[in-house]
Amino acid sequence: MRRTSFSKFRCPVAQALDKVGDWWSIILIRDAFEGLSRFDEFQQSLGISSNSLTSRLRYLVEVGVLERHLYQERPSRYQYVLTPLGREFFPVLITLFEWGNLQNKADDVTMLLGAVKGGAERRPVVMDKATGEIITEKNTRLLAGPAADAAILERVALVKSVRAGK
Amino acid sequence: MRRTSFSKFRCPVAQALDKVGDWWSIILIRDAFEGLSRFDEFQQSLGISSNSLTSRLRYLVEVGVLERHLYQERPSRYQYVLTPLGREFFPVLITLFEWGNLQNKADDVTMLLGAVKGGAERRPVVMDKATGEIITEKNTRLLAGPAADAAILERVALVKSVRAGK
Repeated sequence: MRRTSFSKFRCPVAQALDKVGDWWSIILIRDAFEGLSRFDEFQQSLGISSNSLTSRLRYLVEVGVLERHLYQERPSRYQYVLTPLGREFFPVLITLFEWGNLQNKADDVTMLLGAVKGGAERRPVVMDKATGEIITEKNTRLLAGPAADAAILERVALVKSVRAGK
Repeated sequence: MRRTSFSKFRCPVAQALDKVGDWWSIILIRDAFEGLSRFDEFQQSLGISSNSLTSRLRYLVEVGVLERHLYQERPSRYQYVLTPLGREFFPVLITLFEWGNLQNKADDVTMLLGAVKGGAERRPVVMDKATGEIITEKNTRLLAGPAADAAILERVALVKSVRAGK
């Protein structure tokens, strides 16, 4: 399903992309957040072949993003629900949603995010949990973590020097 | 480069994925945020063929995520920098980074995000710009936008009823 493994990069962004698999997986996760859980619901939503859907669902179960539950016997029917790890993907979907909408003129927007209570439109921004500061490219940089190897340390130093030279 | 076009879904997440192209594009955008701009810098970082890199850079210029600038003549050399639209992708990268790191044990983390000033570790959360409320799956729902067609209205209603039934 995936073109190439990015895991050799050992960068969290690459690891995330590597795990989530492919575009269709993200759309499946989106659907799972919207409450779809049965094979036929996903198929109706995505309009892809049974084989493609089967392999994508199996992949997401394998990597721990979805769980499969038997909800009917004879014939066996399963539903697919997000695991805790899958639920943690919500911020990625929200920021993708916002970036997608940024490209639409106001009149061309098909869907918005709203508060469950009151329905006011929500506009997401990413902030630091501890300080409440909005995280921007300018106020944020890479730090080497405890498992940084020589290649990572070199990368962090390179980024620092390139940015200092700007 | 892309497997399938998702634009028919008319969902902002699908539109975002459709625009950004493929996994490698996201890694290229990551590199551009880290300050890489020249062909050879990207190539060294990604380790992909010149042809692949050329087509991916061209694609990102075409969709308005990167801009190409001549920085040397005879021979002509170009650098690739993020457009304003490309810069707006930062929150997506940050949330992917966080999700990637969630899967590592503390000792296995290779890179962290830190404040430029002081270097304190940053942990991103997504909040609503107007209210400062953290955006969660439970407190947020889809709203139909001004350009919602019958299919979108049906989708929004479906999601609402599925969620109400949980």
